[in-house]
Amino acid sequence: MTKRRITIAIDCMGGDFAPHELVKGAISGGREHQVDVLLVGAPEAIQKELAQLDVQGVKFEIIPASQTIDMAESPGSAIRKKKDASVVVASQCVAKGQAQGLVAVGNTGAAMAAALFNMGRIEGIDRPAIAVVLPTTAKNPAILIDAGANADCIPEMLIQFAKMGGIFVESVLRVKNPRVGLLNIGEEYSKGNTFSLSTYKLLESHEGLQFVGNIEGKHLFDGSADVIVCDGFTGNVALKTAEGVGKMVMKIFKDEAGQSLRAKAGALLVKSAMKKVKRKVSDEEFGGALLLGVKGICVIGHGGSNAYAVQNAIRVAKEAIEQDVIAKIESKVAQACVVP
Amino acid sequence: MTKRRITIAIDCMGGDFAPHELVKGAISGGREHQVDVLLVGAPEAIQKELAQLDVQGVKFEIIPASQTIDMAESPGSAIRKKKDASVVVASQCVAKGQAQGLVAVGNTGAAMAAALFNMGRIEGIDRPAIAVVLPTTAKNPAILIDAGANADCIPEMLIQFAKMGGIFVESVLRVKNPRVGLLNIGEEYSKGNTFSLSTYKLLESHEGLQFVGNIEGKHLFDGSADVIVCDGFTGNVALKTAEGVGKMVMKIFKDEAGQSLRAKAGALLVKSAMKKVKRKVSDEEFGGALLLGVKGICVIGHGGSNAYAVQNAIRVAKEAIEQDVIAKIESKVAQACVVP
Repeated sequence: MTKRRITIAIDCMGGDFAPHELVKGAISGGREHQVDVLLVGAPEAIQKELAQLDVQGVKFEIIPASQTIDMAESPGSAIRKKKDASVVVASQCVAKGQAQGLVAVGNTGAAMAAALFNMGRIEGIDRPAIAVVLPTTAKNPAILIDAGANADCIPEMLIQFAKMGGIFVESVLRVKNPRVGLLNIGEEYSKGNTFSLSTYKLLESHEGLQFVGNIEGKHLFDGSADVIVCDGFTGNVALKTAEGVGKMVMKIFKDEAGQSLRAKAGALLVKSAMKKVKRKVSDEEFGGALLLGVKGICVIGHGGSNAYAVQNAIRVAKEAIEQDVIAKIESKVAQACVVP
Repeated sequence: MTKRRITIAIDCMGGDFAPHELVKGAISGGREHQVDVLLVGAPEAIQKELAQLDVQGVKFEIIPASQTIDMAESPGSAIRKKKDASVVVASQCVAKGQAQGLVAVGNTGAAMAAALFNMGRIEGIDRPAIAVVLPTTAKNPAILIDAGANADCIPEMLIQFAKMGGIFVESVLRVKNPRVGLLNIGEEYSKGNTFSLSTYKLLESHEGLQFVGNIEGKHLFDGSADVIVCDGFTGNVALKTAEGVGKMVMKIFKDEAGQSLRAKAGALLVKSAMKKVKRKVSDEEFGGALLLGVKGICVIGHGGSNAYAVQNAIRVAKEAIEQDVIAKIESKVAQACVVP
């Protein structure tokens, strides 16, 4: 029996470097990960990019979309007004079965809204959530869920986040029996705000979760837990703070290396170390976040994604499809826990 | 007219390196910043440390305290049970007027509870808050308030945080007309959770604040605002996440430098750059956080504080005392805005 060929729809018009990096990443991702790609966006612009690329061995199709949604637009109204926006059309490709997964970069809210509106929620899932892969100093990366889909949460929602996140970690990151932690401001069970105290109790008493307690921000990156759950506001603040610190540290290193021309070998070494750090901590390598809980694989990348990031996003989408993450969520999460 | 000599009480028994680093830092801080110091803790242990130090030119006094509160103890009950704990006795020194400021490292909650219980709140201030100095890539550092004193907040509290923080930034960090930002998950006014949306409206309409809008986590360290306000849960998560990223980045750099023995000059340079980054991003340099809103200056340091950090904490306390931060909070904040 031959394995069914996977097709992934790429919104080629989103993010800071569209369409160039998107088309480039789609083609290299298609080749590298042996998937077919639908290039969604302005046909002429996409054609122009393709003309500069070696497309041999990659099966692709251009799917026209006449509109784009930029970073600053309000997701809800943009989705309603721009029926022919690339991200909308790309998510419809998944809804109609032309593709099994969507890769979008740029306006996260718009990608989420388009996916939710067109693909729909998995029955029994109350709120889809964004899982972001975090680099760690341990053997495996960890995931943070929810990284921004739901600014306001009730504690019960985090049970579903924990379960969906666990399935992602087991299936795609290949971590067995993932340990679930709650992002909080102290390690002891008695620490936190009203929300985290209630959530702790729920997580602790919920069967089928390997709950390891509270995880402080300083332990997000050391492998203390595999799945770290939180409301989307807190998760987004943590994620963007991490980005800010990373940028600041890189800038200081860069300044230092620049000043040290006296030791050229040293400067080179700093640059090489910086590259390594950047690679380790950037989302390029991880290929973006997965929107879990919608009826279709949806990988959302950073607005600044380059071709390499897009290529990795395609890898994540492919693995999630192959591992049947949606069916697993349907059978293991949606029926097991319903938010009251 | 001679300036009145300042006395600062140092809890010498708190944190990971007590009493050694505390006594050492107290003496060097006393000398460096020309203040008298009260060394609070077990007299014998303190004496033993003093015997190894050059104490010439420093006026100090040992204030006996027979108990200590360690990092893991629950603040409230520890304060109630251990009447003779070093942090309790040290805060009483301020309450009784023997000292004008307290420096404590280690159990932040215990220091806060001791200060609040013994010194009392400034009238009209509903909730004291912790202001932490953040390094930035811009000219001036910024402060984050509240960094963990109040896990649950109502929007009105953040007006007081903004005002107290502004006074600290103007007085101690010498930043004129501080710009106030709200830690949030998007730049637009329409972004956020229920809490941040309400808080935005309050801050925007409050006279006397130079409100510059929402600040995302990624802009905490780039000088986008001078005072960044948030509830204590969010602030603590952001702060500790920053610490976690810093640690991870340092570890990767260290590993890289270790592997590159082939270029010894390079390894040295990486180390020197790392030292610079560490200094820039560590709280050693900033001397800890200030608990604003209590009737006495209270500087709280990281549990891992060394002598240099303690010395800088003394500097912060001294400047806050000289700049009359408490009187300014009394006159400018407490009467101006009362939380309903």
